[in-house]
Amino acid sequence: VIVECPHYETNMSRLSVSNIQEVLWIYRLRMIELKRDPQFVHASVFKNKGVLAGASLQHSHSQLIATPVVPVSIWEEITGAMQFYQGQGRSLFSDMIANELQAGVRVVLDTASFLVICPFASRFAFEMLILPKQQSSHFENITERASEELASVLKIVLLKLELALDDPPYNYVIHTAPFNQPELPYYLWHIEIFPRLTRVAGFEWGSGCYINEVLPEMAATILRNTKSE
Amino acid sequence: VIVECPHYETNMSRLSVSNIQEVLWIYRLRMIELKRDPQFVHASVFKNKGVLAGASLQHSHSQLIATPVVPVSIWEEITGAMQFYQGQGRSLFSDMIANELQAGVRVVLDTASFLVICPFASRFAFEMLILPKQQSSHFENITERASEELASVLKIVLLKLELALDDPPYNYVIHTAPFNQPELPYYLWHIEIFPRLTRVAGFEWGSGCYINEVLPEMAATILRNTKSE
Repeated sequence: VIVECPHYETNMSRLSVSNIQEVLWIYRLRMIELKRDPQFVHASVFKNKGVLAGASLQHSHSQLIATPVVPVSIWEEITGAMQFYQGQGRSLFSDMIANELQAGVRVVLDTASFLVICPFASRFAFEMLILPKQQSSHFENITERASEELASVLKIVLLKLELALDDPPYNYVIHTAPFNQPELPYYLWHIEIFPRLTRVAGFEWGSGCYINEVLPEMAATILRNTKSE
Repeated sequence: VIVECPHYETNMSRLSVSNIQEVLWIYRLRMIELKRDPQFVHASVFKNKGVLAGASLQHSHSQLIATPVVPVSIWEEITGAMQFYQGQGRSLFSDMIANELQAGVRVVLDTASFLVICPFASRFAFEMLILPKQQSSHFENITERASEELASVLKIVLLKLELALDDPPYNYVIHTAPFNQPELPYYLWHIEIFPRLTRVAGFEWGSGCYINEVLPEMAATILRNTKSE
């Protein structure tokens, strides 16, 4: 459990950018430390904000779980990206960034080093994806400068989410390549953020398909137009 | 939406066995009807009981959604079962039934035509799986006699769930082969039942792995020992 600040605070978005950068840096330091233990091959970093998102603590916190196996979601994502790379000779993530920047309609925020979009096939209403623009498969290789910019991006998008949706419960998760893999040219670490506005029910559990009543283009428009100050 | 009875009732378990059999028979009739429409290749049948399980209606009801694609969970399950069959020359489901009957420790209920177990790799605490003992990949091919026995099994296990866990929210889903497939010797239709006792949070969404604090053997013992009358 990563306790994000010494004073009582429920919303990460209210922490200073430098405080958020410290939290991101701790993720990195813990991953580098855990990587040295050969029993672990992957670390999942995630945040549960609000009771409906599964949080059991009110104080702003995130969590890191290292596992001796590659989680199935990460394995599927990397395998899919590898197959695309082998077939097309290009990174799926680079294609996605180029296509989303060109289309523009699903862009929430575009900074020097990061792109935030509402994904084309969003599972959840107002789901967001933070993508680094520079190729890197492992989160723990982030530079100090990039982590500062990411802290600022995270603060802005969390503020947008809270202001647009009345402080909703949400989760974010960092997807990153396994410890025991070298830099993978076809995979990009990224952060998925999803507010928990509806309950996942029988259809989703039974089918693996998701009912989402908000178009990502509409979600992106609302989030883009929500002031974050 | 399948409204399960004409009088006000929140719990399917309180309906008579013949009423529950009528509900199961309606699932079958609707599937046979929808199967005739070439745009549909699969029907998902599911129940959301209680607000925390995603129900928006209190009255006892279930739902059926026909889709023009095979849902990803069904596709993965069938593909895995097919690969096992090709590799081992046996049905994974037959093996599971034989092994669970022999082990006994995860069995909740064992009747002439159905076996109810807490699956070895349960994602959720007190998850249950209803398996027909006779090979059949398509739910809609169920006989009237088997549907009567299934109604009785469903009533018993839902009563056990409600009594053991203080009327919890739950979902059940029917997994069945696509309309456009013939009888598949390696696949068995089945019903998954899972109470919603904890909230699925960031770790589960990020990793595809599930934290379950109750061993299936303990859940099965509790459910087996819970009277259903």
